[in-house]
Amino acid sequence: MQTLRVDLGERSYPIFIGEGLLGNGDLLLPYIKGKQVCIVTNETIAPLYLDALKSALSSLRLDVVVLPDGEEHKNLQTLNLIFDELLDKKHNRTTTLIALGGGVVGDMTGFAAACYQRGVDFIQVPTTLLSQVDSSVGGKTGVNHVLGKNMIGAFHQPNAVVIDTQVLKTLPKRELAAGFAEIVKYGLIADAPFFAWLEENVEELMACASEALAYAIEQSCLNKARVVELDEREGGVRAILNLGHTFGHAIETAQGYGVWLHGEAVAAGMVMAMDLSLREGWVSEDDVARTRALLQKAGLPVTAPENMTERQFLELMSVDKKVLDGSLRLVLVRQLGQATVTESFSQANLKATLGVT
Amino acid sequence: MQTLRVDLGERSYPIFIGEGLLGNGDLLLPYIKGKQVCIVTNETIAPLYLDALKSALSSLRLDVVVLPDGEEHKNLQTLNLIFDELLDKKHNRTTTLIALGGGVVGDMTGFAAACYQRGVDFIQVPTTLLSQVDSSVGGKTGVNHVLGKNMIGAFHQPNAVVIDTQVLKTLPKRELAAGFAEIVKYGLIADAPFFAWLEENVEELMACASEALAYAIEQSCLNKARVVELDEREGGVRAILNLGHTFGHAIETAQGYGVWLHGEAVAAGMVMAMDLSLREGWVSEDDVARTRALLQKAGLPVTAPENMTERQFLELMSVDKKVLDGSLRLVLVRQLGQATVTESFSQANLKATLGVT
Repeated sequence: MQTLRVDLGERSYPIFIGEGLLGNGDLLLPYIKGKQVCIVTNETIAPLYLDALKSALSSLRLDVVVLPDGEEHKNLQTLNLIFDELLDKKHNRTTTLIALGGGVVGDMTGFAAACYQRGVDFIQVPTTLLSQVDSSVGGKTGVNHVLGKNMIGAFHQPNAVVIDTQVLKTLPKRELAAGFAEIVKYGLIADAPFFAWLEENVEELMACASEALAYAIEQSCLNKARVVELDEREGGVRAILNLGHTFGHAIETAQGYGVWLHGEAVAAGMVMAMDLSLREGWVSEDDVARTRALLQKAGLPVTAPENMTERQFLELMSVDKKVLDGSLRLVLVRQLGQATVTESFSQANLKATLGVT
Repeated sequence: MQTLRVDLGERSYPIFIGEGLLGNGDLLLPYIKGKQVCIVTNETIAPLYLDALKSALSSLRLDVVVLPDGEEHKNLQTLNLIFDELLDKKHNRTTTLIALGGGVVGDMTGFAAACYQRGVDFIQVPTTLLSQVDSSVGGKTGVNHVLGKNMIGAFHQPNAVVIDTQVLKTLPKRELAAGFAEIVKYGLIADAPFFAWLEENVEELMACASEALAYAIEQSCLNKARVVELDEREGGVRAILNLGHTFGHAIETAQGYGVWLHGEAVAAGMVMAMDLSLREGWVSEDDVARTRALLQKAGLPVTAPENMTERQFLELMSVDKKVLDGSLRLVLVRQLGQATVTESFSQANLKATLGVT
């Protein structure tokens, strides 16, 4: 088992990475303050892993909320199902919520924990590669609004993140690839040697080789933790973690939530960000080609959906959270392994990027 | 104009108290960071004061959300109307929300500000006596759930609180009295001399005498600010501000939101808390009689609704946020001007209190 630490003063917490951690009560119990626990999961994950987690916590008073599966349910209405259960079972301020599932379950459980009685504890037990390497770490929680993704939420750090690599064996290949997109992101924004390692190991990763996956998860969480520590509430540098996301969110919104997986939209979005970075004279054609090739090897899309127009992109990107006082801000790559948030790019270049991909 | 300060480090803010402040742009503008402002108000307040506030801020891009009036609308569905407007008009992270209204508008606007894009600025412009002396100060925001009041929310401090005493002239007498209940609370929990002053001045206050009201508001906000500064997130002492509220919330829930005004329920609840404090051997019969008389002079209820049973009280009080690990905690008065949060009281005494009042 590997243990990393996210250092945020009194909000610091550990990330545990290893096989079979889900059923390890001794690991979880020190991070549960009271006697009440509410596990939040979804219809897909519950039959696979709920029993193991419940057994590990059998000494506590456990309640369970099983949400419908899918990004289209990540909204205030579904969130209310968690509040219904907590209030019906009289959970008090010392309760602990446990998110057992992917990014949607983690984001919603974290937001419910942020808001229930103005804030209670929660633990992340992410069950998809994407949530293990990205959304479970860093305290971003929230739900979608019909007019924009993750527009309603809170910064609320978990007490611990427990990453069981064994659960990836039951993950559909398409979701494994979606998680891989976020892993590639860390290489592009902060870690060129890791990017090169990924190029060497992409086949092994996609074949679900345990050791390679554990290393990729560890490096990803490490890179994410270092950025979050510098800027917990995204006042500045943390925004580099959104590489490809402004383009990606526009794709997800245009296609309807759930049609493209988040990681797929980010993959295409990262290629668009690299394309714009190239046009701005920063990265090389070779860097863009390597990025495209690496993502393609994982079976990820590297171009925007054909049915999207430049105008649709600009409209949807203008409501993104990265827009400040009317100026569109994008994460671009200065050189492979180094990203920057900027609103200084040529509109002509942006339009070219939106047109060609 | 009086200026108080709530000292919470980087979340510190001023409270301005005076006549006609609502239309004073110079006072408001320094607390607005960006160019976008969204005023949130309700159907009752909008025709009275919205124009004055809009004129004061005419240099900015103003959007307005007019909510339905009433505690029964303080829920996630109505909250979403604020998010709809913010997203429809493309408000970004530098936007400022302004709550123009009573406690319901203030709590919902503050919570919307806490959650919109994971947190934006807001300003409180409270227009009821109750919200001026209580809910607009201290950063408690949120909405109700059908199973409990204020169960979903956040701690989110405003940038400034602007209290215009002139608006009280249009406030219905019943609401003036409801606000007076919270004013009496500060006397009971923290300020015996202020309690005595209130006994002397209750007729003037209920006649809406400007100078007396301004003094009562100032002393109330001062007392509240000092408690909030000690314990922003209610880990301990801040809970004394809930004197009468656990009983009161049970009354409000049992009667249905909006049938009893919050301040009315708190008035009856405070008498119940004083009655229990007497039974515990702390306050004197004279203290209880003085409290009852003072509230009655303002036309406030001093007994629970006749249709409520002891069992109903116990059931409803058990979901209150002050319940920790199954033990009911109540705010009781040690002596006039000094309160304590405790779970050490005799169940027989509690039952007697619930039975007699």
